[in-house]
Amino acid sequence: MRRVTIADIARAAGVSKGSVSYALNDKPGVSDATRRRILEIADELRWAPSTAARSLSDGRADAFGLVIDRPARALGLEPFFMQLISGIQGALSGSSTSLMLQVTEDTERELDTYRMWFAQRRVDGVLVVDLRVDDPRPELLSQMGLPAVLIGGPLTGVSQPYVWSDDASAVREVVHYLFALRHRRIGRVAGPAKFLHTQTRSEAFSSVTSELGLMGCPTVHTDYSDDAGARATRRLLADPNPPSALLFDNDLMAVAALGVAQEMGISVPEQLSVVAFDDSPLSRSVRPALTAVRRDAAAHGQRAAEVLQRLCAGEDPGSVETPPAELVPRSSTAIVPDPAAG
Amino acid sequence: MRRVTIADIARAAGVSKGSVSYALNDKPGVSDATRRRILEIADELRWAPSTAARSLSDGRADAFGLVIDRPARALGLEPFFMQLISGIQGALSGSSTSLMLQVTEDTERELDTYRMWFAQRRVDGVLVVDLRVDDPRPELLSQMGLPAVLIGGPLTGVSQPYVWSDDASAVREVVHYLFALRHRRIGRVAGPAKFLHTQTRSEAFSSVTSELGLMGCPTVHTDYSDDAGARATRRLLADPNPPSALLFDNDLMAVAALGVAQEMGISVPEQLSVVAFDDSPLSRSVRPALTAVRRDAAAHGQRAAEVLQRLCAGEDPGSVETPPAELVPRSSTAIVPDPAAG
Repeated sequence: MRRVTIADIARAAGVSKGSVSYALNDKPGVSDATRRRILEIADELRWAPSTAARSLSDGRADAFGLVIDRPARALGLEPFFMQLISGIQGALSGSSTSLMLQVTEDTERELDTYRMWFAQRRVDGVLVVDLRVDDPRPELLSQMGLPAVLIGGPLTGVSQPYVWSDDASAVREVVHYLFALRHRRIGRVAGPAKFLHTQTRSEAFSSVTSELGLMGCPTVHTDYSDDAGARATRRLLADPNPPSALLFDNDLMAVAALGVAQEMGISVPEQLSVVAFDDSPLSRSVRPALTAVRRDAAAHGQRAAEVLQRLCAGEDPGSVETPPAELVPRSSTAIVPDPAAG
Repeated sequence: MRRVTIADIARAAGVSKGSVSYALNDKPGVSDATRRRILEIADELRWAPSTAARSLSDGRADAFGLVIDRPARALGLEPFFMQLISGIQGALSGSSTSLMLQVTEDTERELDTYRMWFAQRRVDGVLVVDLRVDDPRPELLSQMGLPAVLIGGPLTGVSQPYVWSDDASAVREVVHYLFALRHRRIGRVAGPAKFLHTQTRSEAFSSVTSELGLMGCPTVHTDYSDDAGARATRRLLADPNPPSALLFDNDLMAVAALGVAQEMGISVPEQLSVVAFDDSPLSRSVRPALTAVRRDAAAHGQRAAEVLQRLCAGEDPGSVETPPAELVPRSSTAIVPDPAAG
């Protein structure tokens, strides 16, 4: 059973392909009787208009695009992306719009993908993730005229709407909490410095630690992998004057840090407090269960897809701020014993 | 900058849309001089053939489809899927084929998605995952004539090629290993019974334990979540005659089991050995690091996409068996003390 074409219908009805096209597209050019016969035969043959044909007529591709520019291996490790994608799917589930997904390993190929999707009319709009410092994508997409929603922010100088949550205040909340637990040396194991959200968190960390008068609170950058997280933790804990608390930019590295602490004979939370950014079942399954900063990645993806739907419908949806991340205290953080009480 | 259409070129060249179409499609009907002028103008205007137009002429959609029929929430937790997807992308990266992704929450909607994709010619073929016992999909896809590659097996009575690895021998290897470590009561915490791969593993587990003369080796089914894994573990360990070793169908549940063992005062691996199916950074990051059955999900996805490419090119690629999973021993398994030596 192959796909039924206009030619098949024409053959079965004994008319020209042009007549079939007139009939199916509800245009003048055939008699009512012929039109009825053609429609009946099309129905019998189970003909369905192809997206291709519809797209030629109304210009819609009925797909949103998402390019993820991270090493393929890293993807399988970040619950964040699959949660984001499942949220996007949640928003699209009522419509006929599908998600076109492409994993690229560098920015140039990501830009090429947008150009190809645009030139070939394969997507109606795109969702842009992992915003970078000096990101070329918003400007390029705006020049192309390809509708886009940026995931991250807050942003200035972009023409697209963006969906964001306040990472800076989440970092401030964690540091204030650790300060209240009497931690005075706090280390941070961060993601790549090139990402805007890393920079946002770094600036917040630096300003809140300095407001609180905390000295020597280092930030170490990693590629988010468990290996890099473990190496950064080892280096920080091997310092003659090591931090008593560590804040990680994802959960995978925080789990790896628990292993490093055990290997170095440092007990969590008695001698070291650990906080993960991004909560997942991982955080609550390990022992001690991890205190974590919880963002709702699925809700984030859903809102972004909704904004893109409105944008593609010709509306002006504006940017959306989703609820800020919340601190979920579990067993990996504890108060530093009062030296005066010792 | 909006998309350049044939009408734009016609206007700029002062010819009809028909002439532009003849020229661009390299068909007779225009003079050589006019054809050259039209092509020059098309080039100046940066016209690119749309997928829609190409698809109407050569019938190709230039996309593969993947429907994942699991709860959205579960997706973010299974590194397996993102690894599979990154492997698929690896195979497609040299071509212009994209991946169309849809998450559905039940089989009926999955089938509807295939019907819609087929009717609207949105994909050239699909990759089918999570094969089920009495799966309606291979037959339906075969009736439609939509090229498909099934991920899983071995299968009988299907017309599509499938890409599989030998889960049964992996289970046999784990049980033989635990038997060699003197374990005589081995419990299994499995995925949903509806999946074919769960059934394959269950049958292998049941036959190998009975060959070795092991009695009372229970299998408990779960939905793969950490919560369900923890509940199953608690139930098995609360038995008056509990297993000394547990085999899990994913890594997330095995991590959850470490937490349950700690909560119940049972030390791993001294009093309980734990083996995870599917290896991930998770398995090696926790303490004790998990002994795991390692499959290369990315390689699996890559092979499946390659087989689908060959199938869509009109070849008869046949089914492919990928290397079997390997047992990676770490610190969560140990020998049972010899009662005679005590």
